[in-house]
Amino acid sequence: MATSDRVPTEAAITRDPFPASKKVYVPGTLHPEIRVAMREVTLEPTPSRVPGVPAEANAPVTLYDTSGPYTDPDIDINVRAGLEPMREAWIRRRGDVEALERPSSAFVNERASDPTLDSIRFPNPRPPLRARAGKRVTQMHYARRGEITPEMEYVALRENQRRELVTEALERGDLHHQHPGQDWGANIPPIITPEFVRDEVARGRAIIPSNINHPELEPMAIGRNFLVKINANIGNSAVTSSIEEEVEKMVWATRWGADNVMDLSTGPNIHETREWILRNSPVPIGTVPIYQALEKVDGRPEELTWDLFRDTLIEQAEQGVDYFTIHAGVLLRFVPMTAKRVTGIVSRGGSILAKWCLAHHKENFLYTHWDEICEIMAAYDVAFSIGDGLRPGSIADANDEAQFAELEVQGDLTKRAWAQDVQVMNEGPGHVPMHMIHANMEKQLAWCHEAPFYTLGPLTTDIAPGYDHITSGIGAAMIGWYGTAMLCYVTPKEHLGLPNRDDVREGVVTYKLAAHAADLAKGHPGAQLRDNALSKARFEFRWNDQFNLALDPEKARAFHDETLPAEGAKVAHFCSMCGPKFCSMEITQQVREYAKEKELAAEQALGEGMAEKSEEFREAGGEIYS
Amino acid sequence: MATSDRVPTEAAITRDPFPASKKVYVPGTLHPEIRVAMREVTLEPTPSRVPGVPAEANAPVTLYDTSGPYTDPDIDINVRAGLEPMREAWIRRRGDVEALERPSSAFVNERASDPTLDSIRFPNPRPPLRARAGKRVTQMHYARRGEITPEMEYVALRENQRRELVTEALERGDLHHQHPGQDWGANIPPIITPEFVRDEVARGRAIIPSNINHPELEPMAIGRNFLVKINANIGNSAVTSSIEEEVEKMVWATRWGADNVMDLSTGPNIHETREWILRNSPVPIGTVPIYQALEKVDGRPEELTWDLFRDTLIEQAEQGVDYFTIHAGVLLRFVPMTAKRVTGIVSRGGSILAKWCLAHHKENFLYTHWDEICEIMAAYDVAFSIGDGLRPGSIADANDEAQFAELEVQGDLTKRAWAQDVQVMNEGPGHVPMHMIHANMEKQLAWCHEAPFYTLGPLTTDIAPGYDHITSGIGAAMIGWYGTAMLCYVTPKEHLGLPNRDDVREGVVTYKLAAHAADLAKGHPGAQLRDNALSKARFEFRWNDQFNLALDPEKARAFHDETLPAEGAKVAHFCSMCGPKFCSMEITQQVREYAKEKELAAEQALGEGMAEKSEEFREAGGEIYS
Repeated sequence: MATSDRVPTEAAITRDPFPASKKVYVPGTLHPEIRVAMREVTLEPTPSRVPGVPAEANAPVTLYDTSGPYTDPDIDINVRAGLEPMREAWIRRRGDVEALERPSSAFVNERASDPTLDSIRFPNPRPPLRARAGKRVTQMHYARRGEITPEMEYVALRENQRRELVTEALERGDLHHQHPGQDWGANIPPIITPEFVRDEVARGRAIIPSNINHPELEPMAIGRNFLVKINANIGNSAVTSSIEEEVEKMVWATRWGADNVMDLSTGPNIHETREWILRNSPVPIGTVPIYQALEKVDGRPEELTWDLFRDTLIEQAEQGVDYFTIHAGVLLRFVPMTAKRVTGIVSRGGSILAKWCLAHHKENFLYTHWDEICEIMAAYDVAFSIGDGLRPGSIADANDEAQFAELEVQGDLTKRAWAQDVQVMNEGPGHVPMHMIHANMEKQLAWCHEAPFYTLGPLTTDIAPGYDHITSGIGAAMIGWYGTAMLCYVTPKEHLGLPNRDDVREGVVTYKLAAHAADLAKGHPGAQLRDNALSKARFEFRWNDQFNLALDPEKARAFHDETLPAEGAKVAHFCSMCGPKFCSMEITQQVREYAKEKELAAEQALGEGMAEKSEEFREAGGEIYS
Repeated sequence: MATSDRVPTEAAITRDPFPASKKVYVPGTLHPEIRVAMREVTLEPTPSRVPGVPAEANAPVTLYDTSGPYTDPDIDINVRAGLEPMREAWIRRRGDVEALERPSSAFVNERASDPTLDSIRFPNPRPPLRARAGKRVTQMHYARRGEITPEMEYVALRENQRRELVTEALERGDLHHQHPGQDWGANIPPIITPEFVRDEVARGRAIIPSNINHPELEPMAIGRNFLVKINANIGNSAVTSSIEEEVEKMVWATRWGADNVMDLSTGPNIHETREWILRNSPVPIGTVPIYQALEKVDGRPEELTWDLFRDTLIEQAEQGVDYFTIHAGVLLRFVPMTAKRVTGIVSRGGSILAKWCLAHHKENFLYTHWDEICEIMAAYDVAFSIGDGLRPGSIADANDEAQFAELEVQGDLTKRAWAQDVQVMNEGPGHVPMHMIHANMEKQLAWCHEAPFYTLGPLTTDIAPGYDHITSGIGAAMIGWYGTAMLCYVTPKEHLGLPNRDDVREGVVTYKLAAHAADLAKGHPGAQLRDNALSKARFEFRWNDQFNLALDPEKARAFHDETLPAEGAKVAHFCSMCGPKFCSMEITQQVREYAKEKELAAEQALGEGMAEKSEEFREAGGEIYS
């Protein structure tokens, strides 16, 4: 077996739990059988600085958790069996699906009978499900008929992060104090209810990617009125990487916070690799089916046909892919608009379709077959991620005619998909200077009827290859604030090469912090709690808590330990930034305690004789605690 | 000699020139003796894809260069002699300074006679200069009396990056095409003239930090109507680092793009270390004199006195420090406003002054001695960086009463400094969620009379220690766009430890890209040229040019080579992202050339019979070049 075909083993999967963290499971009310996984971080008490007064406990903090069962040491993981299909019972209970005896795709059946693939095939496939004739099995369909599914209640509980338990504290202030946001017209309620989720999905303002053939996933929502989500891309190419690496990359990305993962494989054995990924993925998986279709015609775009593409859609839908990027907005008449660009067409899908259109002098077959595609999507609940094949690939090309012409078509396609109850999000740029980002959001909201926006960055300058997670993280944070529902990550290797593990982690954490910065700016209820808890820990020199509440606890700890590795430094009232004498935090602590101990209101102190107070303080040694 | 006392040698200084780059020196017109250093990057030609047609040359790109003589292989560097004092003749010629027989600071004279310091002392000191009695030697003073100094012309030429040479091309479009900016009311002319520089300095809207005792520096401007600048901090602390390391850190930071460097040393031998840094620094050096003053009273803030502080100011002014952070806005009545904060006072200077105020129950002595301080600054042309000692240290504390109370005082102090012709910038936050950043800029412009704003980040969330160069890079890019003139960098080690070389580089490049993103958004003339040139190189698979035009050419190249190390891959028409068959750039290239070759205008092509064209194309093999 070649290296590139190596199948995964448990040994290759990262399973360490996060420090001072445990999994908690919140049960449903409407659907008592659901158990929503969250991560609870235990904090150390605040040490007392006054003799005789006890330390003050700090309440644990509950965090949104994308890492799935892998970080729960009580769960047995067997990558050859896949994760527990939690949603299977929910799906079956709705009574609108049928199990197929064999996959519907000709390609899949052919491949299934090829013995040379035995060694790399996932060993425990499930028979695929499909909607019974005349049924639509999408979350949007259920939402529109007023049904709150287990998926919707799961999402509601998950979004709240147990905020419903702290309503009183919220009112009191404390660590729950938060700045009012600027939400650009979003409609974020203080508590997410299952009914709110249903309503958002029914309107098309949010999606819950949840293919009936991916029962292993933990439901999540993508929508402007929910927490901003991030997507990480994985995928092998002709040049590098193995099945084992891809599965671990998915686990690794979700560990650091990826809410979704797109498998963009373009190399060999795409079908088998995807099966391993899906069976082991707790997050929705997206793909760009045209990549695989192109593999099937040996990389010659002009050979693509609707029949071949249709078979690919069904192949992937029956495996359980949760959303498809479909570049149906790349119309023949838009292609020449890109001729004068500095960087032409930079979307792989976009360029494939453009080449097909020119070769055939016909309209894009994805556009002309749109309604048939919708029908397939509705039969499995695959969501659309309507691609932006003409997105700008450079600052120079931002917000041009081609880009916006396609965006308008994305809006029309959205409506047509909704007519068949298919969930939709729209993809967006790309490379856009800061001052031109807001126009993208405005137009998308207006033209695409508030369907969730899903953007790649955007990169705010082209001059920093090697740092494009940052050039794009800036744009991502801003467009997330303006209303984008999901941010597609960019790694430091963007434009240069395929990301490795470190790059994936760096990209995911960068996007996680960008998404969180956006939540704070929107004033998402509860978003500031983690900032407040971490800042309080920082101020009180609770180093371990500061690390444990960080997006990347390992890196925070490692950076600290580089200069002050001793365990004693973890409770030291200084760090290597300033050394023991100059720590401003320490001095401030003294200032505050002085005010408190003397029981002098600030104004009162100023009102009294300054000289007298000064004398008192100096006589006491000029230090609060000697 | 202890490790921490090691003095620098040439061997420890990074001197490699940038790839495909050479130093060019642009002479002045008003002052023909000035030679403004810039970096010129030579590009490869665009290879022809049509047989018989020659490759097309790409014009070299001129870049703003902060790296000083170190990257010019024709210049001999001797760290024991220091850099050539380029400005000395300019300063002497003005006839308003006198050379002192010995330094004016008692501390310095005492130290000069201590033989135990001989081994670490800079071996070639110059006698300090001071304004002759009754004279002010500041750039603002000259500007206000209508004089265009060599420093001002230097700045004008430097800011233009030879843009004045490409006016015609600018008008034609090409690579000089640029999106109109959104400059929030700034006043940026298409070409920076020396007279414009003078006018901006006279109004106080820009500063040229240029102590008469730092003749080695290459003049630069900090102002809202100039390119956004960045500052990098270096400095030893009680815990780590040597003199040698600090000098190399300065060279290293300017190599990657630091326009200014602040020496924040708090450990031993601050005076001697600073001398080595100044004599070898091509960029302005800033300090926070209260740090050294505190060293002199063994770290006890309450022991600080005006006399001791005054001696420290003079000590540093006569060494050549170009700007001082002075926390004169931390007033006694503001200190209690910080008691309820989550993170109290986080500025070291702010907390030192707060402690002094409380200990003495007196007003901040920096505030009460402000006019005397201004007098000292005017005698050496040290600029103020009026500190924000009460800046927020967490998202929770952003934009609060204490912060804005101090900002108003910064405005008053600015006016009083201007009354003595002293150059001023104002420091700003800190930690601010995205939606509250703009208010900081608005208030600073209004209250501080358009004096340059100089901010630390701001960090847009607290939850990512280990990634705070990014959390703050987001805020920095935004506030730079809004009008901040200089961005103080943050490294990945912020809040955790002292940055090492890699951290400094990561922090500098992050801030450089943030500053550049701001320039693009403001529509700074010419800013987009580098983006366009790099994007064109990317599109044409000129990998070497893509690397060489990047902010960090080494990293870009190294990242590429990780997956495709062969030299042949540098001209390959694909990269490891997608492999040889799927490269969208390659496909787009074909699409474009097809249109060109057939000499069909896009619209025309669509008007003709599609089937016929399609047939033609397919008969030709469906590929443009076989």
